[in-house]
Amino acid sequence: METEKIDLLKTYLSLYINHTVVLADLDKEDSKYVVLDVRNAPAQIKKDQIKGAFAIPAKDLKNHIKEFDKEKIYVVYDWTAGTTLGKEALLILLSEGFKAYELACALEGWKGMNLPIEEIQ
Amino acid sequence: METEKIDLLKTYLSLYINHTVVLADLDKEDSKYVVLDVRNAPAQIKKDQIKGAFAIPAKDLKNHIKEFDKEKIYVVYDWTAGTTLGKEALLILLSEGFKAYELACALEGWKGMNLPIEEIQ
Amino acid sequence: METEKIDLLKTYLSLYINHTVVLADLDKEDSKYVVLDVRNAPAQIKKDQIKGAFAIPAKDLKNHIKEFDKEKIYVVYDWTAGTTLGKEALLILLSEGFKAYELACALEGWKGMNLPIEEIQ
Repeated sequence: METEKIDLLKTYLSLYINHTVVLADLDKEDSKYVVLDVRNAPAQIKKDQIKGAFAIPAKDLKNHIKEFDKEKIYVVYDWTAGTTLGKEALLILLSEGFKAYELACALEGWKGMNLPIEEIQ
Repeated sequence: METEKIDLLKTYLSLYINHTVVLADLDKEDSKYVVLDVRNAPAQIKKDQIKGAFAIPAKDLKNHIKEFDKEKIYVVYDWTAGTTLGKEALLILLSEGFKAYELACALEGWKGMNLPIEEIQ
Repeated sequence: METEKIDLLKTYLSLYINHTVVLADLDKEDSKYVVLDVRNAPAQIKKDQIKGAFAIPAKDLKNHIKEFDKEKIYVVYDWTAGTTLGKEALLILLSEGFKAYELACALEGWKGMNLPIEEIQ
């Protein structure tokens, strides 16, 4: 049972990327990370997002998959880390052969740490 | 590793059902979905619940399993989607041969989208 | 698919321990449980913690692993149950051969049930 636990934890944690990795690279000219806000909510509900993120609702991701770049690493996030939306987006991206992770802290944690956000018009 | 990630995501996501599926069917006369509020809290803590849900604490589920109907699809929910209570209930239901899912948005998301709730007496 | 779901739920749930088990034992003279607060935040952000917990940020856990006791059962917690930090700590402890679980309710649930906490200086 301990081996199964360890295997599950390893695979589960490998789905996530830490905010520090993303933050450090986002300051670079040609960042390899692209942050995707995959919340299915309209702008007036979302109100703000992680600075520099692209809003692409999880439900629309498949229709836009041809616009994505295999050289980039996609980082998806939802309101919180325990929800399913980020994982739905992640499954689409990984299945299509893209490098992708879910942001471990999600939007909730990002805001809790006072990391840069921007208003949505 | 990518295959393991994809397999985990597929199985994990297959545990959940989207609120839209449940909502669309709940309006029907003879809905095939039965929503179960499996929170272990007393009514004065819970205060309200998803409209039409049946309150059956996860800890009492096993004792009432004979009252369940194999023709129905059970949808369990807890306060939030990342907790373990919904999954404990789900494990009992699936192990007993019932069709069952966890509500992807949980109560938190359901309320956040202003979907129908009702007070608990 | 049902078997895969049940297997995943079983392994996933086996990572967690219920607060009632921990609470009952914490009152004993020589408790076998040691509660670890693995949040990476400074004291002024954390403000309080579960009563009797030891603060050891997940990022520092590996460096202190030699101070741990194989006779004890470690119970780690983060802000909420759906985050990754508790699982990072758990992976380290299990990989090093310790008995360890994540607290199912996390700090959020513990406080929600008005269980004993203490201020952090």
